[in-house]
Amino acid sequence: MKIILTNDDGIYSPGILELKEALAPFGSVNVVAPDVQKSGVGHSITFSHPLRVREVYTNGDFVGYGIDGSPADCVKLAVREILKEKSQLLVSGINIGANVGINVLYSGTVAAAIEGALLGIPSVAVSLEISESTPDVKGAAETTKNIIDLIIKKELPRGTLLNINIPNISKEKIKGVKITNQFSGDFEEHYEKRTDPRGIAYYWLAGTGWPKEDVIGTDMHALKEGYISVTPLRYDLTDKTFLTEVGSWEWNT
Amino acid sequence: MKIILTNDDGIYSPGILELKEALAPFGSVNVVAPDVQKSGVGHSITFSHPLRVREVYTNGDFVGYGIDGSPADCVKLAVREILKEKSQLLVSGINIGANVGINVLYSGTVAAAIEGALLGIPSVAVSLEISESTPDVKGAAETTKNIIDLIIKKELPRGTLLNINIPNISKEKIKGVKITNQFSGDFEEHYEKRTDPRGIAYYWLAGTGWPKEDVIGTDMHALKEGYISVTPLRYDLTDKTFLTEVGSWEWNT
Repeated sequence: MKIILTNDDGIYSPGILELKEALAPFGSVNVVAPDVQKSGVGHSITFSHPLRVREVYTNGDFVGYGIDGSPADCVKLAVREILKEKSQLLVSGINIGANVGINVLYSGTVAAAIEGALLGIPSVAVSLEISESTPDVKGAAETTKNIIDLIIKKELPRGTLLNINIPNISKEKIKGVKITNQFSGDFEEHYEKRTDPRGIAYYWLAGTGWPKEDVIGTDMHALKEGYISVTPLRYDLTDKTFLTEVGSWEWNT
Repeated sequence: MKIILTNDDGIYSPGILELKEALAPFGSVNVVAPDVQKSGVGHSITFSHPLRVREVYTNGDFVGYGIDGSPADCVKLAVREILKEKSQLLVSGINIGANVGINVLYSGTVAAAIEGALLGIPSVAVSLEISESTPDVKGAAETTKNIIDLIIKKELPRGTLLNINIPNISKEKIKGVKITNQFSGDFEEHYEKRTDPRGIAYYWLAGTGWPKEDVIGTDMHALKEGYISVTPLRYDLTDKTFLTEVGSWEWNT
């Protein structure tokens, strides 16, 4: 099978290189990723300037295509232009840092998988929690391999992708897999106001990135408890449950 | 009431200035918007560098705060730091160009309204279709005013925002309001490969931006037929209908 591998940490990140190796037994892995770090870019796309594609090598070996755009740009350009054959799977990651709760929307990693799903490719985003220990990228790649093995045997509905988050603990300590909902509450977050050497104010986004409340059944909770979190996501944002009520309003504009 | 007004076309765009005037009768309107054009940035946020806030004046009159970040940054910084009092409404727009279908995810305008909803503020994104005629921003601001008047009287569930798209035709020709679903199919889109003066290839994103198929009941279809499209959106992307099935898979990683 043909697999597209991308991320938002950039084509030189350890997460993508470990995953390239781990996914090799499943088929041919085409790496198409941003040429630099693109964390927090969400589902941004580039249309005001053109994109450049560069073949990237490390130690003389071809790694893949590096693009000066967002993760979503990489997927779009790979599918629409660079790769001549249709891919059967897209994996985005391994991101260093969890993508749970509202971070799902801020994340370039998840956006790449959304773009893949939109283009009709079964897509998966994979992220590894940051903790006090060094990120065990090799272990996470091994875990991802086992998960992908299961996903290949199953079928994802068109328009649905999987968002996977792995806790940064040893394989033996991981309690298992929890199927979860995206946490949708508020975060502990604030801005730090500082003053530059010229006396002008600037603001840094700061905070723990963890929720003010903890909700059982969510991606955040599962991860915190030592489980791998698997959340099925869809990119149709329509609030179906509110359609009827909003339709009953007196819209006579 | 306190209203936050933002956009992704930047603080000097005609869309935000017309809307500021149109919304004035409802309360105090605080403009907090990107200092330059930020179309297509999606829900990107800035945490790798700090943000600057600048008071913006035109002809000696205070317009609002211009920020060197994304639309979502503007909302986050406004709510968490700049505005001391809680706002009761957030309006993002008027964007010049429709935000329907997958553009909902690419759009900085919609992302700002999602960020507002996340922060507990009833939020609305407003976009005006681009057509062959000059965009009638004044007319769209008037239409928006009437819609906001209705929304203020009603209640949006926490976590739900409204995505409004206005066709660029005269008020008399607008057929009414349609409550719609976000179109989730593919677009007519491709990359144009060109060569720069030094002989190196580059790729421009191109295409009509319209879907390959037309689906009744969607935002795109309503707009095309001359209706104002109103889509309730939620930022919890969980695919609830697929939760049970994915939970039945053999997750023994």
